[in-house]
Formats: sequence, C-alpha cells, structure tokens
Amino acid sequence: MDRIPILRLQDYLLVTIQVELHDQLAVTLQDDLTQTLSRTHAKGVLIDISALEIVDSFIGRTLAHIASMARVMDANTVVVGMRPAVAITLIELGMTLSGINTALNVDKGMTLLRSLEADEPPRPEAA
Amino acid sequence: MDRIPILRLQDYLLVTIQVELHDQLAVTLQDDLTQTLSRTHAKGVLIDISALEIVDSFIGRTLAHIASMARVMDANTVVVGMRPAVAITLIELGMTLSGINTALNVDKGMTLLRSLEADEPPRPEAA
Repeated sequence: MDRIPILRLQDYLLVTIQVELHDQLAVTLQDDLTQTLSRTHAKGVLIDISALEIVDSFIGRTLAHIASMARVMDANTVVVGMRPAVAITLIELGMTLSGINTALNVDKGMTLLRSLEADEPPRPEAA
Repeated sequence: MDRIPILRLQDYLLVTIQVELHDQLAVTLQDDLTQTLSRTHAKGVLIDISALEIVDSFIGRTLAHIASMARVMDANTVVVGMRPAVAITLIELGMTLSGINTALNVDKGMTLLRSLEADEPPRPEAA
C-alpha cells in the first residue's frame, strides 16, 4: 500500500482512508491531493474516515493540514463518516478538530460542500 | 482492517478496494454489500480498484460474485479505475472479466449505471 487513491466525483475529490496513516503515507497523500486539486480544479475534498477505529492526534493533525492546503488551493474540505466511538474519544481527549468541517456521510458532505461554495464570493476567472 | 467501507453516493454504493482481498474479507464484503443493498434500495454498485496493482483470479471471481449478487438484488455493478498494467495482465492471463461492466473512473461509472438503469424495463412497485 504505497498511496491512498483519490477519486473524482463530479467537482469534488473523494479520499477514503482505510489503512493506518503513517508518516510517509500522509506526506504522499498530501502531495497527491494538491497535485490532483491543481490538475482537476476540484472545488472540494471529501475525506471518508468510516473505516478508522482510532483517530489519534497524528491523524487529526494530518486532516487539519490537508484542509489548510486545500483551502489555499481554493477548495473546502469535509471529513465524513466518523464512527460514534471515534467522536466520543476525540472529545474526551480534548481534540475538537477545529477548522475541519464534518458531515455524517458522503451525501451530506457533498451538500455541505455545495453550501460552503455558495457562501463564498465568486472567484475571479483565471486568465 | 476487518471490513471494507461501503459509501452511499445518492442512489449508488461505492466500494474502494485498497487492501489485498483475502477469503474472510471478501465474504464480509459480500455480506455487508447485500445487507446495504437491501437497506438502502441502491440501484447500482461502483467498485473502485484503482489502488490494486494486482488483480488475480480470486479477485476476479469475487468481483463476478458481487456483480451476480447485486444483479439478483436489482442493482447493476460497474468496476472502475483499473490500472493500465492490470488490464494488460488480465487479458494476457485470459481473464476477460465477462459479465462485469467496467468504466474508466467513478464519474463515467455513474453515467454507465444510469444508462444501464434506463435500458431496463420499469420494475414493478413493491406492495
């Protein structure tokens, strides 16, 4: 497992994290994602973490990094599919995932991305 | 890794296979998928194999089983994201994946699912 696949869904990118994120895999994912954002002009990124039983501070930080990178590339990020037990643990540990948008599932995440897009001022067209 | 997540995208289900499918995982996937089809009344299944560097006869058979199961549950199956090297190897090995629909990526797969649906006679409404 050398990289996590990035799927294009209409104007959005979908990343399903199914394996434990180690350092190199996280770096590769950030690299691939920025490249794909640049190539596809996607307007948003959905990160599905429904397969993760544990979200530790490293994953939390990686998600926040990805959201910040996507933000400067003019795309919003929504994390979807968090398991109830993960949500409980995160809050108990004091990790509030500030700055990261979340939604219950992919469909709701796409709706959220569309509404975030609509709230933004229109972007200038590239020359 | 005990199970492969199944994501709902509007009327379809998306399965991204990222890890090697061993016997138990394949059985769990088939079980989860039929349960999810029954619960959500999804009209199609997209299986993304872009992360797979090798598709052997076991995976080919599993994909064919899934497609047949989905078929009897009134859903079409499209396999998307096959790597060029995988396609070459499959044909060289004489595996033509007969009975499995394929498409280049998720967007094209969803378009194919919609057209397959449109070609079918309208299904009787459940009582």
